[in-house]
Amino acid sequence: MKVQPVRGTRDFYPDDMAFRNWLFERWRRASRRAGFVEVDGPELEPLELYTGKSGPEITEQLYWLEDKSRRKLALRPEFTPTLARMIAARQAALPGPIRWFNISRCFRYERAQKGRLREFFQWNVDLIGIAEEIADAECISMAVDAMKDVGLGPEDVQIRINDRRLLGALVRHLGVAEDRVPQVFAILDKRDKVPPETVGAMLAEAGLGTAGRQGLERMLGWQRLDDIEARERATPEVQAAADALQRLFGLLADYGIAEWCRFDIGIVRGLAYYTGPVWEVHDRQGELRAIFGGGRYDRLLADMGGKAVPACGFGCGDAVLGILLAERGLRPQAEPPAEFFVASATEQNFPEVLVVVRRLRGRNRPTQFDLKAGNLKRQMKKAADAGAQFVVIVTEEFARSRRVTLRDMRSGEQRDLALDELGV
Amino acid sequence: MKVQPVRGTRDFYPDDMAFRNWLFERWRRASRRAGFVEVDGPELEPLELYTGKSGPEITEQLYWLEDKSRRKLALRPEFTPTLARMIAARQAALPGPIRWFNISRCFRYERAQKGRLREFFQWNVDLIGIAEEIADAECISMAVDAMKDVGLGPEDVQIRINDRRLLGALVRHLGVAEDRVPQVFAILDKRDKVPPETVGAMLAEAGLGTAGRQGLERMLGWQRLDDIEARERATPEVQAAADALQRLFGLLADYGIAEWCRFDIGIVRGLAYYTGPVWEVHDRQGELRAIFGGGRYDRLLADMGGKAVPACGFGCGDAVLGILLAERGLRPQAEPPAEFFVASATEQNFPEVLVVVRRLRGRNRPTQFDLKAGNLKRQMKKAADAGAQFVVIVTEEFARSRRVTLRDMRSGEQRDLALDELGV
Repeated sequence: MKVQPVRGTRDFYPDDMAFRNWLFERWRRASRRAGFVEVDGPELEPLELYTGKSGPEITEQLYWLEDKSRRKLALRPEFTPTLARMIAARQAALPGPIRWFNISRCFRYERAQKGRLREFFQWNVDLIGIAEEIADAECISMAVDAMKDVGLGPEDVQIRINDRRLLGALVRHLGVAEDRVPQVFAILDKRDKVPPETVGAMLAEAGLGTAGRQGLERMLGWQRLDDIEARERATPEVQAAADALQRLFGLLADYGIAEWCRFDIGIVRGLAYYTGPVWEVHDRQGELRAIFGGGRYDRLLADMGGKAVPACGFGCGDAVLGILLAERGLRPQAEPPAEFFVASATEQNFPEVLVVVRRLRGRNRPTQFDLKAGNLKRQMKKAADAGAQFVVIVTEEFARSRRVTLRDMRSGEQRDLALDELGV
Repeated sequence: MKVQPVRGTRDFYPDDMAFRNWLFERWRRASRRAGFVEVDGPELEPLELYTGKSGPEITEQLYWLEDKSRRKLALRPEFTPTLARMIAARQAALPGPIRWFNISRCFRYERAQKGRLREFFQWNVDLIGIAEEIADAECISMAVDAMKDVGLGPEDVQIRINDRRLLGALVRHLGVAEDRVPQVFAILDKRDKVPPETVGAMLAEAGLGTAGRQGLERMLGWQRLDDIEARERATPEVQAAADALQRLFGLLADYGIAEWCRFDIGIVRGLAYYTGPVWEVHDRQGELRAIFGGGRYDRLLADMGGKAVPACGFGCGDAVLGILLAERGLRPQAEPPAEFFVASATEQNFPEVLVVVRRLRGRNRPTQFDLKAGNLKRQMKKAADAGAQFVVIVTEEFARSRRVTLRDMRSGEQRDLALDELGV
């Protein structure tokens, strides 16, 4: 019987795995350049870690099970709750601020479609302990650094930045009751996925009258922070939130990444726990869903049983980014598996071939040889299959001379050299 | 509420994560030196991929769930069935032999104890398409290479090698019926974990009479291949299996690793699918369970719906190896998160500090700075917390001179240099 893989999961054959490693390496070095250290947690967590904290959408999408002791366990849908749990467990001992990153495999049961998988990878960056905008800017700068490192520029992608405090103040200013604000946020976050008339009906249900809906429509048309009108700025909390965003944009200019960033009052982020600046990276052509996003979540640690501490960060999945890189021709070729291939000039002679193989591998050079008995022609074919750059030919003289023939497979040049000269 | 992690899972704080990355890097480079390429598959697989193939012990230990479409899914307990599935799906297109490795997170519901976790990592190496002993030797050689690379020597660990064909022939020679052989293998595999009298009773139940049990006891006393006695060698299949093992040991000598290896008729391996040579790596002091092991599984691909093809490989978990390395003092220190720390000589001045930070990060040097307003003393304290090797001090002159002060935190030496000279 042939077993089919689970829908929404992926097999990583060598080319796909090479791309995954290439991408992870760029995520890692962008993190490390910024002085962040890698952490990880379990993929199996107690179900209660997610129920109520990650927002209803994620909770509905959980894969969960009961173990033999009837404990309810969930596969992690994201890393942040694990991070919050880990910090809460050692909060007193960890020196602040905490600069952590993580690359997680995550699981969400959702409709499998372009850029949406049920099993995917996510790069998480979290900066814990700083309430000021410099921390948000540090995270956004790292996101830009990683985009640059995979070959994308500000002509390819754009970071759209908002602040939930600003949007919250504006929505309350339109007359929405405090306890209905999360509902309005959820509607705004989904507004590109449902028809406009449905959005209107949903907003009405959340307590926005005709005037309120028109006001919201007007605000969603703002392109720059300066577009915020005097009648809104008259509200102190709107002005304070606009000032905070202005400081953030100033810092982004100091980081030299102003051209990557723009204000977008419509950015909300789906997760329930964000409390301040929120941002998303989108492809400029607007063909794909958000590549990634993040924001500030100053209450999450206290909600998880830790001490209240300001925090911000982001998560970047591999699926949409992978599609964008493939479309742009930025997905690199995999390295061939062997740099060297060692062959016998006569029939395969393992003891002598292995002397040369051991020498090359001992020098950290990827080396293969033919594992079947066969003549030189067969061995040269195998060397070509492996993409080897060099073939080392062991002749009958080798036992006496300890000399081999080195052929460069690109130029076809051959030369004779001593075993000790190989792989230096 | 504080949520506790699931028993048998681990949180990887920075030190533990650094060790995990260090170990994975050594697994990867041992694989790549031998010309193997990395692959991976899903962690969520259809339950039926495991039922019946991995042996009853693993099937009992599966974590599994029903998704919303009532499909039964399992968390992978090992990688080999996924590998077999992936090869069966593309068998015609893949050039042989296939040299693949993988580093998997795996899940088994078993009693959490020293060296046994419910969530662990495993390095898998598989060589598909070669029936001869050179393939088994190639795998064992890679295992030795990785042991060397983590700092272990033949005085620390030993590879104990057997062949199931030899043990099977011997057990049949003692009068055990063909269909009872797997049962006897399972008893032998568990014999160190149950009292001797229980082992005797279990063997009797499997059809071994008193003479048979005494014969088995005698065979388990053999230390070398040469100890196999003439009365057993008279059976052609015993002699053929002994010859195959002899060829394998000859190749291991050609690889230069004879001193790491010895014959051990008692090695069985728990997994049901092994068909030929089997081997385990043990610590010499015998204090820990097997560090890792592998063998030949020539029937697995056909059982998975593929074409029959010879195959061998091994899996190495991170838990027991991690304990051994810690006991031997071979667990490395983590690198500090920052190489450079950029400070303002006066109150924190982000725009100027960021000029220097961008320069250093742009040169791929891990760089932090103080994210809070504060004086130089506070900033120097943060630099020490980060373990920074160098502090770059930005003075009031910087705006004009573009020069900074570089302090080496180890020697205490300071020198003045131009921004352009930093991080080269």
